[in-house]
Amino acid sequence: MDTATALERKIRQAIPLSDAMQFSIRNLSLDSIKVAAPLEPNINIHGTGFAGSIYSLGVLTGWALCTHILDELDIKAELVVASAEIRYRAPVSGDLVCSCNCSEAQRKSFRQGIDEAGKGKLLLDIEVGGDRQAILQATFIAIAA
Amino acid sequence: MDTATALERKIRQAIPLSDAMQFSIRNLSLDSIKVAAPLEPNINIHGTGFAGSIYSLGVLTGWALCTHILDELDIKAELVVASAEIRYRAPVSGDLVCSCNCSEAQRKSFRQGIDEAGKGKLLLDIEVGGDRQAILQATFIAIAA
Repeated sequence: MDTATALERKIRQAIPLSDAMQFSIRNLSLDSIKVAAPLEPNINIHGTGFAGSIYSLGVLTGWALCTHILDELDIKAELVVASAEIRYRAPVSGDLVCSCNCSEAQRKSFRQGIDEAGKGKLLLDIEVGGDRQAILQATFIAIAA
Repeated sequence: MDTATALERKIRQAIPLSDAMQFSIRNLSLDSIKVAAPLEPNINIHGTGFAGSIYSLGVLTGWALCTHILDELDIKAELVVASAEIRYRAPVSGDLVCSCNCSEAQRKSFRQGIDEAGKGKLLLDIEVGGDRQAILQATFIAIAA
């Protein structure tokens, strides 16, 4: 089983809502992630993507990328989301697709915080939809275990 | 069937994720709402409330209160959430409980926007957990239909 599939399975088993959303990881590397979920289990009353699903998929995208970074850098830490801001710019009428990038400089500062202060912070910009229909900024905190 | 039960049913039928979360409305009036969901379908990898569930329940709380206000004031409008900010202050280790208040002044300004400009805005503060474990600020927009 590849790393992306193993992480997707771990998340879907531990977080029932991610399973209800049919969360899946399409691409995963240290630099970026792409995640998707079909529209049907995530519709709202207007037949487009539910605001809660859009947010949840975005947070899972960032959380999965942070977890992958911690795993690859062999850092033992507890990861939580501290705060987030989301703007809904347009309805999502197809599959919910999320993407997020993380630069080497961001990873270096994240690792440095954990190594030196026992606490690393990563602020990620996550896009939802093929045309940035929603933009999520989320702050993740890793506390050295 | 009372108004709260009818609205809960409408939301759970139209938004599959709210049904997966076991969303329920405990109290509903023009001034306030209280909403709950059990922890079990909403847990994360640490066994506490999933960040996405906490956010989604908060947004549904605000959305349900706005919908009730529009219904009671007999206003025909399409309601969407435009943006939101959430701060996670502590883990939620029991049932997810959300509450939100809306003053008469807020409702008046909301109605005025719809009547005069075809568009009303309502900024709601929503608390999650019995001890404000998470605080959500969400902006809802109603566009006259």
